[in-house]
Amino acid sequence: MIGDVQVGGGAPVVVQSMTNTDTRDAEATLRQVYDLAVNGCEIVRVAVPDMDAAKAIPEIVDRSPVPIVADIHFDYRLALAALDGGVHALRLNPGNITDERKVQTVVARAKERSVPIRIGVNFGSLPKKPYRDLGPEPTIVDRMVDAALWEIDLLEKMDFDLIKISLKAFDVPTMVGAYRKIAPLIPYPLHLGVTEAGLPGPGSIRSAVGMGILLAEGIGDTIRVSLTGDPCLEIDACYQILGALNLRYRGVTMVSCPSCGRAEIDIIGLANQVNEHLRKLNKPLKVAVMGCVVNGPGESRDADIGIAGGKGRGVIYKHGEVFRTVDEKDLLPALLQEIERM
Amino acid sequence: MIGDVQVGGGAPVVVQSMTNTDTRDAEATLRQVYDLAVNGCEIVRVAVPDMDAAKAIPEIVDRSPVPIVADIHFDYRLALAALDGGVHALRLNPGNITDERKVQTVVARAKERSVPIRIGVNFGSLPKKPYRDLGPEPTIVDRMVDAALWEIDLLEKMDFDLIKISLKAFDVPTMVGAYRKIAPLIPYPLHLGVTEAGLPGPGSIRSAVGMGILLAEGIGDTIRVSLTGDPCLEIDACYQILGALNLRYRGVTMVSCPSCGRAEIDIIGLANQVNEHLRKLNKPLKVAVMGCVVNGPGESRDADIGIAGGKGRGVIYKHGEVFRTVDEKDLLPALLQEIERM
Repeated sequence: MIGDVQVGGGAPVVVQSMTNTDTRDAEATLRQVYDLAVNGCEIVRVAVPDMDAAKAIPEIVDRSPVPIVADIHFDYRLALAALDGGVHALRLNPGNITDERKVQTVVARAKERSVPIRIGVNFGSLPKKPYRDLGPEPTIVDRMVDAALWEIDLLEKMDFDLIKISLKAFDVPTMVGAYRKIAPLIPYPLHLGVTEAGLPGPGSIRSAVGMGILLAEGIGDTIRVSLTGDPCLEIDACYQILGALNLRYRGVTMVSCPSCGRAEIDIIGLANQVNEHLRKLNKPLKVAVMGCVVNGPGESRDADIGIAGGKGRGVIYKHGEVFRTVDEKDLLPALLQEIERM
Repeated sequence: MIGDVQVGGGAPVVVQSMTNTDTRDAEATLRQVYDLAVNGCEIVRVAVPDMDAAKAIPEIVDRSPVPIVADIHFDYRLALAALDGGVHALRLNPGNITDERKVQTVVARAKERSVPIRIGVNFGSLPKKPYRDLGPEPTIVDRMVDAALWEIDLLEKMDFDLIKISLKAFDVPTMVGAYRKIAPLIPYPLHLGVTEAGLPGPGSIRSAVGMGILLAEGIGDTIRVSLTGDPCLEIDACYQILGALNLRYRGVTMVSCPSCGRAEIDIIGLANQVNEHLRKLNKPLKVAVMGCVVNGPGESRDADIGIAGGKGRGVIYKHGEVFRTVDEKDLLPALLQEIERM
């Protein structure tokens, strides 16, 4: 449990993100937390790079509508301060807090407060040397899993099991390999991520490939898409990935065809207008916007409501049945009216 | 071989798309074919919905820089006309050209001309009844594979083996299941697609999940992303999917962090500026734009060239070595200058 949000143990895959504000500015950080929460983010992480940031934690935690995770690197005292500030979870990096006693001090405090710890391994910040003997030429995957197992071991020796693991890399085969390797070795929930995935367009696609492969295998309990942009875009991407695998839905799912030389109505224009009207509607509705008679009737019938275009007009289908035929100019209002009724 | 492009048999995964112009307008169609080709599209499909469209095929084929595939539904005579027009390949739908003799007529002509045929099954246009006995409650996957196998059988009986198969659906588990089922049964190349995937943002993510899962298993010889928008966006998405799995690259790969409360330079602004300058550069370069010292040095070292931000300044890494340290305001020009030299 991160605050009141269950991660793993059969719970739906949890969607999370991270603020990119200056954490010391609690007001700005909270505004972003609210934005994220309204868009469906269920856990928010904030960076705690110094003691001033740690001092903002109590106010952020107090006013946040969702659980807050403190992201800690380098200095274990920041973890202690975040715990004292009432944070719901910690993220520690076994690549840059490497002193056993310092980790133990943090774990003792987390245990007192029953606060979970994510052991967050990143390709970009691996420990300089493996903790265990991995032979002469360990792979990156071996080294990532080694770093996680070292810290898991430390925590387990202190009877601490509120553990979550992440093994992130930009390289998808590396990231997939690391999660596949650790999944059968440990009983803890996994937080998936393709790290530093880039700008929203390519970053979402890269994340979808990496997380899609793992989620389809049943690996992954919570996900964060890392995009260089507004973090609310990360939430959209998370739900699109989960929706593609029928794991979770948020908002309307639109089935729409690419249009081609066969289309008899303006599909691209119509699909964009339908999206503009429905994108804030948080209902699990499947809407089809199809250009012609090849796949139109079939896909429209499979949707809750759909349009299949014909020559200057279109057929509206509802729950698999032809509902009415309307002129092209009336298609959008007729569709929206029916959706409103539904 | 589709024209001079090899599909399957160990060739790199081929990227393709489809025009959304009126095929009868050869000029407009060719403009879009050129746009697609310039962006890296290797095969272009055009709809042939009627005889007037078929009549435009000779000019389109003649002036196209890439092989042209004619997309045929319902009427086998359109396939014959496209073949006579010199098209490089056909796509037939076993859901709507169901008369064996008509298919045989097309195959005889394709064989004479050594023109390959894609058997393109779509969830949205399955045959009304299965061709074979699939038991009392066949799944959608069973029905899709059945439609493909029926037509494969017809073609094989005529000693025709220039065959490619697609089994597209909007639902990713359905599409993944269908390709996984047919892959071990046939020796022919597979054309992957998540059909009617929607607007560019969600459609790319959905396609990345479906195709990513299959490509990571070694299934898939050519891909088409179906987006409701400019088809050139489909090409970008194809290369992003292939790049995520290190299968093919086109243009610069950007590793950039999401920025967080730890970032000491404006990462989002910088990453967008770098992208703006490099997005038309078709070189296989990996560029990292990283905000801080946590993963910055590690990821930047792994890239061909990278920036790791610090307090108001940044370090430029080249091929794993620190190259120089510059003020934040000089980061962009210094990075671009180095890339120019490389």
